[in-house]
Amino acid sequence: MEKVRIAVIGLGARGSQILKDILLKMADVQITAVCDSYEDRVDDAAKAIVEAGQDEPFKTTDYREVIACGKVDAISIYTAWDMHAEIAIASMRAGIPVASEVGSEYSLNNCWQLVRTHEETGTPYMFMENCCFGKDELLATAMMRHGLFGEVVHCSGVYGHDLRKEVAEGIQQRHYRFRNYRARNCENYPTHELGPMAMLLNINRGNRMVSLTSVASKAAGLKAYIEETKDKVEYSDEVLNATFKQGDIVQTLVTCENGETMLLTLDTTLPRYYTRGFTVRGTKGFYQQETNSVFIDGVHPEECELDTYRNYEKFLNNATEYEKDYLPSIWKDISPEVKEMGHGGMDYFTHRAFIEAVKNGTPMPLDVYDAAAWMAVSVLSEQSIREGGSVQQIPDFTNGKWMFRPAKDVVEL
Amino acid sequence: MEKVRIAVIGLGARGSQILKDILLKMADVQITAVCDSYEDRVDDAAKAIVEAGQDEPFKTTDYREVIACGKVDAISIYTAWDMHAEIAIASMRAGIPVASEVGSEYSLNNCWQLVRTHEETGTPYMFMENCCFGKDELLATAMMRHGLFGEVVHCSGVYGHDLRKEVAEGIQQRHYRFRNYRARNCENYPTHELGPMAMLLNINRGNRMVSLTSVASKAAGLKAYIEETKDKVEYSDEVLNATFKQGDIVQTLVTCENGETMLLTLDTTLPRYYTRGFTVRGTKGFYQQETNSVFIDGVHPEECELDTYRNYEKFLNNATEYEKDYLPSIWKDISPEVKEMGHGGMDYFTHRAFIEAVKNGTPMPLDVYDAAAWMAVSVLSEQSIREGGSVQQIPDFTNGKWMFRPAKDVVEL
Repeated sequence: MEKVRIAVIGLGARGSQILKDILLKMADVQITAVCDSYEDRVDDAAKAIVEAGQDEPFKTTDYREVIACGKVDAISIYTAWDMHAEIAIASMRAGIPVASEVGSEYSLNNCWQLVRTHEETGTPYMFMENCCFGKDELLATAMMRHGLFGEVVHCSGVYGHDLRKEVAEGIQQRHYRFRNYRARNCENYPTHELGPMAMLLNINRGNRMVSLTSVASKAAGLKAYIEETKDKVEYSDEVLNATFKQGDIVQTLVTCENGETMLLTLDTTLPRYYTRGFTVRGTKGFYQQETNSVFIDGVHPEECELDTYRNYEKFLNNATEYEKDYLPSIWKDISPEVKEMGHGGMDYFTHRAFIEAVKNGTPMPLDVYDAAAWMAVSVLSEQSIREGGSVQQIPDFTNGKWMFRPAKDVVEL
Repeated sequence: MEKVRIAVIGLGARGSQILKDILLKMADVQITAVCDSYEDRVDDAAKAIVEAGQDEPFKTTDYREVIACGKVDAISIYTAWDMHAEIAIASMRAGIPVASEVGSEYSLNNCWQLVRTHEETGTPYMFMENCCFGKDELLATAMMRHGLFGEVVHCSGVYGHDLRKEVAEGIQQRHYRFRNYRARNCENYPTHELGPMAMLLNINRGNRMVSLTSVASKAAGLKAYIEETKDKVEYSDEVLNATFKQGDIVQTLVTCENGETMLLTLDTTLPRYYTRGFTVRGTKGFYQQETNSVFIDGVHPEECELDTYRNYEKFLNNATEYEKDYLPSIWKDISPEVKEMGHGGMDYFTHRAFIEAVKNGTPMPLDVYDAAAWMAVSVLSEQSIREGGSVQQIPDFTNGKWMFRPAKDVVEL
């Protein structure tokens, strides 16, 4: 396979960015089909493809036609969350390897369908969680693999991203966020923080998530934002009168089979700077992304002052010192071009991994069991919140295979 | 009342420090009785009192004798957690105003007994949560009261204090931590973070905590620490063979009547620097103690880079800029002497508030309802963890009076 013929389905902000910034720049990729339910997006994408020197792609507003067109080796999905599983399942049934952008699921059954379809068809499926390829996350994971943190007992992470404008202007932008934030209250986007934690803790590979409890604060951020901006932005009555169910801060505590806990925080409708707050806690030390800090028992001072609360200052950005020994080579050797390709390079690494696995017929680094377990957290979080934080059992989508599936990182660490 | 005659009950590390560093330095305080179950501690305290130029105090190993001795205007308790309520209740029944050091409760009934005894006797009771007088906590609370954060929807805090040495050497040190960490698994010390959050959110004063869920990681930190240090420290077999039930990281999510949520983290048996991680999140901005940061919508950049995870650097320590306008006067005008009196001065402020209220017959700034509600979190956390994180309803110890009790800060903000 000299060139992998890719279909891009879903051409909103994310899909068109990946198309233009990454896929069209890969010498061994040809975009042979584009699809979106909005025709103008399809035309724009086709134009960009032709401008990049490739042949006019197959164009459609119906993903079934992409699957049937006979011109694609693999499909990559960037649609609204509610279409991810349906398209991926159809693609696997047609024997076409498929990559799914991250998102939220709405039922456990959808998660199961993904797993069952993959098991029945054997068609490769990759879950495109770019943060699993993140620089900080891989540095911390490498340090953990080399024993620097001792036995890890806890991880935490945040999706801290002020999306108020994107949600409030969702209808104009033809984006699915508006309807999701209005209608649901859950950890609606768990995988940016959960993915890297799950890989580090060998979830589905020697460990598994067994239960969770999820609690949501009241929803005040979006209403206040729309009130604040209504003189500057032309909102429709639907937006002005909207009541949002999505709590501003949603926190989910996950317990793992081997006794570790994970804290996930969804934080997208209050003013803040972007953060992922990836944190790893072990018996010998910790990594803390929020301050880029490492603390190792015996190496760093045992006793810190109780009278000041500025102890972090001594450790600020000292994680950088560990890059020399522990940062994986993809990040050590990153080119300036790749750095510009989205989220500092991790979008490229994720797509490169998918293309390589398709070309070489090797296993996907993030698979259907990861997708099912991680996205199930949205569904169970919604149920838990509705019941005031009740405990929800997380299904074992591997059907016991987690006990013998070997641990494996997305790159060598 | 020229001099307030105080009895100090409990003369371990904390009690003797408060006695020597604070109470003996107050011109309007006389220590007229000292009590501890260990006689040598009583003798040491009496010696320090005489050396400070005061009369030899009444000495006993039985707190009942303190209450009966007729020489005290108020009692201050620093014993093991399990004796706090019993002594406070006996003191209130005798009509002696009482201050209780913070800690953990073991039954809801004890919390209720505190409340009922106070209501029946009318004897003043103060809960000595020093962090409610903390500099950072009061700065953030003042900013919140002045509307800088908009509507607050979420707070979080941490008791992040590496106590491995203290727990492991607890038997030698005649300290109650060892037995508590061995026998229980719960949020065993909630009030350092919960107190300031509860004050800010007007808990028991227009708002109340309604439910919680609590999850604990496995307990690996103490075992690893003892293994690591056993060649340097002479541990008894009881310590070497101990199995600790207390999870290393315990996280508790509290939901409030008015829709806010609070996250409490107990983090005392893994290597780390001291932190309280006090965080306030509102519709217009946030305060974050971990990086001493303030972020205000419209003032600070709306869009931060997604490609780097170092956005915190722009806001590091900028909270200091707000001190001029919002730091309460006790902290602005703090003397060098007070700063040295423990935890940067807040121990002094807490004790000063108690003495003033006793002298003037004014209401205690942190009262029996605060104590009951906050310490109930330990009990309910223990139940929740035992049930995998089940939802626990938090009693309304005010019996509906939270609806009309006016909001009140510990100092003017």
